[in-house]
Amino acid sequence: MDIADWRRKIDEIDRKLVELLNQRAQAAQEIGRLKRNTKMPIYEPDRERAVFDNVRQVSQGPLPERDLTQIYERIMDVMRKIQKEEIVPQAKSRTAADTELDSDVND
Amino acid sequence: MDIADWRRKIDEIDRKLVELLNQRAQAAQEIGRLKRNTKMPIYEPDRERAVFDNVRQVSQGPLPERDLTQIYERIMDVMRKIQKEEIVPQAKSRTAADTELDSDVND
Repeated sequence: MDIADWRRKIDEIDRKLVELLNQRAQAAQEIGRLKRNTKMPIYEPDRERAVFDNVRQVSQGPLPERDLTQIYERIMDVMRKIQKEEIVPQAKSRTAADTELDSDVND
Repeated sequence: MDIADWRRKIDEIDRKLVELLNQRAQAAQEIGRLKRNTKMPIYEPDRERAVFDNVRQVSQGPLPERDLTQIYERIMDVMRKIQKEEIVPQAKSRTAADTELDSDVND
């Protein structure tokens, strides 16, 4: 395979990655909706740890664990924000409640 | 579906995401190997732009474009580093050549 072939393969992989990232975002939204107006604890550190454990365990490489973790930290940042928007849909600007949620939302 | 169901779905999505990220890393390595010892230009800004265009065009949501771009910026950072390691495999410490490559490697 030459470089053009590998790039076509990357474009194909990217299409699948984008589809999965959107599916993940939808799941984060659904969890946010289920949490809305409940008394459920929002902050669940064990869940975030379980996500990272799952990701590391299933990885067969060649992506080094450190790099995979870096990518997942960004994915989790985004998903946390998406879920927060479902839990606090009225939050259009920064409020005290909003700030408090920042570090407390898991997916 | 309750929260536990959605989390099982997320774990399943994550397994597929990890597999695809590893496939993408392998493709970046292969391109790095093909570029090694050639006179091919390493810096190809059009390619990076094409990757982002592809990703945005195929996205059906609900992930906002801004968030998708943020995730992809991290993916591209990691892939650029992985490719550089293949092009300059002997680079174990920071050298002038190494520094020069930093902003010049595309996948």
